[in-house]
Amino acid sequence: MENNDKKSCSLQKAHQIIFNNIERIYNKIILLKEAQQRITFNDVVAVTPQPSFDEATRDGYVISLDLDSEVKTNPFQIIGEIPAGKPYLNTLLPGTACRIMTGGCVPKGSSRVVPFEDCVEQNGTVVVADRSLLTAQTFIKKTGSEIAGGEILVPEGVALQAGHLALLASCGIHSIAVAARPLVGHVCTGSELAATSEGLEFGQKVSSNSFLIEGLLASVGARPVNMGIVRDTEQELRDLFTKVSTGDLDVMITTGGMGPGKYDLVESMFVEAGGEVIFNTIAMRPGKSILFGILNRTVFFGLPGPPYAVRTLLNELVSPAILAMQGAKGSWPKMVEAHVQHQINIKRNEVLRLKDAILTLSKGKCLVRFAGRQEIPNCSMLLPPGQLHYSEGDLVEVHLTNELCAGI
Amino acid sequence: MENNDKKSCSLQKAHQIIFNNIERIYNKIILLKEAQQRITFNDVVAVTPQPSFDEATRDGYVISLDLDSEVKTNPFQIIGEIPAGKPYLNTLLPGTACRIMTGGCVPKGSSRVVPFEDCVEQNGTVVVADRSLLTAQTFIKKTGSEIAGGEILVPEGVALQAGHLALLASCGIHSIAVAARPLVGHVCTGSELAATSEGLEFGQKVSSNSFLIEGLLASVGARPVNMGIVRDTEQELRDLFTKVSTGDLDVMITTGGMGPGKYDLVESMFVEAGGEVIFNTIAMRPGKSILFGILNRTVFFGLPGPPYAVRTLLNELVSPAILAMQGAKGSWPKMVEAHVQHQINIKRNEVLRLKDAILTLSKGKCLVRFAGRQEIPNCSMLLPPGQLHYSEGDLVEVHLTNELCAGI
Repeated sequence: MENNDKKSCSLQKAHQIIFNNIERIYNKIILLKEAQQRITFNDVVAVTPQPSFDEATRDGYVISLDLDSEVKTNPFQIIGEIPAGKPYLNTLLPGTACRIMTGGCVPKGSSRVVPFEDCVEQNGTVVVADRSLLTAQTFIKKTGSEIAGGEILVPEGVALQAGHLALLASCGIHSIAVAARPLVGHVCTGSELAATSEGLEFGQKVSSNSFLIEGLLASVGARPVNMGIVRDTEQELRDLFTKVSTGDLDVMITTGGMGPGKYDLVESMFVEAGGEVIFNTIAMRPGKSILFGILNRTVFFGLPGPPYAVRTLLNELVSPAILAMQGAKGSWPKMVEAHVQHQINIKRNEVLRLKDAILTLSKGKCLVRFAGRQEIPNCSMLLPPGQLHYSEGDLVEVHLTNELCAGI
Repeated sequence: MENNDKKSCSLQKAHQIIFNNIERIYNKIILLKEAQQRITFNDVVAVTPQPSFDEATRDGYVISLDLDSEVKTNPFQIIGEIPAGKPYLNTLLPGTACRIMTGGCVPKGSSRVVPFEDCVEQNGTVVVADRSLLTAQTFIKKTGSEIAGGEILVPEGVALQAGHLALLASCGIHSIAVAARPLVGHVCTGSELAATSEGLEFGQKVSSNSFLIEGLLASVGARPVNMGIVRDTEQELRDLFTKVSTGDLDVMITTGGMGPGKYDLVESMFVEAGGEVIFNTIAMRPGKSILFGILNRTVFFGLPGPPYAVRTLLNELVSPAILAMQGAKGSWPKMVEAHVQHQINIKRNEVLRLKDAILTLSKGKCLVRFAGRQEIPNCSMLLPPGQLHYSEGDLVEVHLTNELCAGI
């Protein structure tokens, strides 16, 4: 293809194209305790039912009624005590009882647990109140009554939270198959960039995008590989793309070098290295300068330089791609509708615009406003082309970022 | 104090008491790139202004007009080229020009940048269009025009997100003072508990609360220390509290052993070890069995055993305490109001109840419903005492969990 060709598409189409070009990553078996935020590779089913034995739900006496006898079995002969964790492995015979603690294992032959307050112990026997024999509540949680063995606990494609881990642990799961973490290389391009402010020379800038990328990628399960800074020269970009095409990265991201200027060499050097450009502009702002392509088996995103554009495009396209690679179910970025908090007037709007914005929840409503200077946005507000005026309270589409919680 | 004393308080009062008993933790200076999610110890100010030099915002020619001369200076003599990152350190003399790239450093003496499309280069000079000399837009972003040196970028007590790190990096910050991570020990008490399902014996249960605690604590910046399982014996609890009272934990959490039963020994052994019980019941469910106290310099939370209660109380009390220790500003858990999604009828409600719930955002509204079986809640719905009926659409108070985002 010619380097100057513009392969344009809509945001929606861009999503489709990206998903069609992504292969699902392999799985890894890891210990459950290391699985927080990892994405399940299969449906995860209960190994053991819950509870895994008939369990007493009160401190009291577990008794065995003689159901064949017409004679009242009261009192019951106390034959022992069952603390939690120490099961009585014999069958409880009719007319006998054991002291039992909450969580204790109810033996075979048991009829019900009678709480201490309904019992009187005397001379090695226990008399239980008649009414406690009549209630439907037996204070026994039956094996499997909460979760049956084999029941699906967490479906495939779910990012595991602490609550999931506790649930899985309680159902006998010790290790689990999760999607591997995609290896995502990133460089910032620009001869003016330095990795850190230490020893920064006049005219140089700190490559702040690498901080943005490392942080945002980690939140979607990627293993970021900071490949440093690449200067705007053919040779350095050639070396970079050679490394990428012969390496084992799942995804490569560059920032900068995507403009029309003579030092904007990312696209041409990507093509020279054998990269296939799938689209190189989206009918959206930011998005005028974005390259999506494939280089050998590595998915490539060439992002523009400005941090605002990097953040927005990471959230809109790169993060969803990385989640899709891991088989995550659901659609990203998460879309909600919110009410415009302050009236908006814009002068012109020829393409879809995504504006850094702040979503807040107030009195049952979702409100959204443009982010202020230096304010970290928790969403993007979508302004479709042509619409120049928004009144307070109008509903607009909003795409959430992974950093949502901090801002609410 | 007597072991049977009930020191009761409201949820609001419990928060106050906890905050009054917490000391702010020391700070640590760490590298910016390791500071994600850490909490700022001081206001963080810009070391360098932004931009840190007069910066070209277009590819073009930077020119120096002779303002004293009546004669038009056009054309300008081209004396060199200024790529990004390579400043021209001399003063640009009237009547001269340099090629400059976006992001390039505008030399002293410059009047404006004229984009390439408004210039014609010939014989070592450049002729610029007259109109481009008259526009207010100079295509020079002046030093400090975005951020002044010394300006506060992030105030004290903020959990740093990727966006913050990028902002700080661009303003010359290389390392940063953050609150140290509180050291939080935790054990699950219960003779029936095992750490893992491997080799689980009949009648035993996996200590699933430890998974819940490790995960939830990490999300508020704590360093969790899993101290394993402690059986319901005086000796094991005595050993535990001895270890705590002589150790360097900031916070200690136990789960289980808080009931009225004969194996519920946590409170008595805490007191025997010299622990001061500050409250041991909250007028709320869950919360009937919770102990808050101090043992030497360690803040102690004795939580009940059921996972639902552990999760709720971690979110309501323990996480806010750990954030407060780190000096985090704001109030936790985050409170919002939401509309009841389905009508609710409850039979009786004598104390404040916190119910596991799911918050969703739909068409500009916050909706809340009870969480289903095995569903991981993203909030608690607060049901104040006395109110037994909620119609669809009624506003209720909701406390968000740190795992909010996953559920929206």
